[in-house]
Amino acid sequence: MPIVQVSVWEGFGQKNARTVIQGVTNVFVDMGIPQHAVEVVIHEVPKSHWGVAGEPASERLKDESPPR
Amino acid sequence: MPIVQVSVWEGFGQKNARTVIQGVTNVFVDMGIPQHAVEVVIHEVPKSHWGVAGEPASERLKDESPPR
Amino acid sequence: MPIVQVSVWEGFGQKNARTVIQGVTNVFVDMGIPQHAVEVVIHEVPKSHWGVAGEPASERLKDESPPR
Amino acid sequence: MPIVQVSVWEGFGQKNARTVIQGVTNVFVDMGIPQHAVEVVIHEVPKSHWGVAGEPASERLKDESPPR
Amino acid sequence: MPIVQVSVWEGFGQKNARTVIQGVTNVFVDMGIPQHAVEVVIHEVPKSHWGVAGEPASERLKDESPPR
Amino acid sequence: MPIVQVSVWEGFGQKNARTVIQGVTNVFVDMGIPQHAVEVVIHEVPKSHWGVAGEPASERLKDESPPR
Repeated sequence: MPIVQVSVWEGFGQKNARTVIQGVTNVFVDMGIPQHAVEVVIHEVPKSHWGVAGEPASERLKDESPPR
Repeated sequence: MPIVQVSVWEGFGQKNARTVIQGVTNVFVDMGIPQHAVEVVIHEVPKSHWGVAGEPASERLKDESPPR
Repeated sequence: MPIVQVSVWEGFGQKNARTVIQGVTNVFVDMGIPQHAVEVVIHEVPKSHWGVAGEPASERLKDESPPR
Repeated sequence: MPIVQVSVWEGFGQKNARTVIQGVTNVFVDMGIPQHAVEVVIHEVPKSHWGVAGEPASERLKDESPPR
Repeated sequence: MPIVQVSVWEGFGQKNARTVIQGVTNVFVDMGIPQHAVEVVIHEVPKSHWGVAGEPASERLKDESPPR
Repeated sequence: MPIVQVSVWEGFGQKNARTVIQGVTNVFVDMGIPQHAVEVVIHEVPKSHWGVAGEPASERLKDESPPR
């Protein structure tokens, strides 16, 4: 343990994925959990399939995108 | 809260996604939960990767598809 | 399909659970999906274990609770 | 019940998916659970988005791949 | 990989959990995946919080329970 | 976005939950994502219901426990 399942917007990409994997793993390592025990899985979801306040993010947050 | 994670068959599409986002959000709004607090995420999964009664839906339910 | 996994705060309770099950199922039935194909699972999570903006909901949103 | 959500590496494919659907369903059938009650959903995730011990599997386990 | 997240009814218990852990792991081992790479997590959910066909399982399936 | 769902062993507790919420949120804030957009949900699972290499963690890892 732990298992960390992360949902993000499509376009998040490999560079951001690596940053999240490293950063999230370190949170647990700093608590004393062995590094090899941390598993992080990142699911990309199209903004059209992500609802915030009853609207797809592709409409409500149409000018926002994942970090570069 | 709440967070709603929905798994559907591939091909569900943007129009159905919007319908689900609106409808599911309204269920919670009608209960008194603020609209901005509802997050809905829809994951499309190929029918070959969806098992019902021990068989892929692509075989067992091969004539069914997501609503248009 | 679909499978709907919902996370809510602890204390949500059976009455709210029934309301969510009925309402969310109806969203899909109204789209033409057979009622028996809709599965909804609700997970209650303590507010101390639910983070919003970097803080547990038990602190940041300490005066809010699930609908009665 | 049960609902079984499986995350695997991208490239797992339809043949492996069928094997998992059959095998996992049988585990529950052997316990006395009706076959039609078992639902299995398989999500493929790119190795770049799967973290083990703080590194993407695409780097740490770069010579491993899903079974043929 | 893989990560297997299983949702079952409350009352499933430790004996059934062990059976599922062993059986599901063996499905992947038989495919050539190393045993230590398989992680299985079982979440128990009250029948009141599990909806089938628009009704809680505690009502619709009130005479059914997890295997002994 | 993002939504982060974390599974940990039972006994993880409120203090560890707060540490995870803060740390994981900061990973995303450091990438330029607004703090209020990060939601973290932590599910505690009994070690008997957590399988590693085909055995419950309550047996295989019986001397390990969540950090204090």
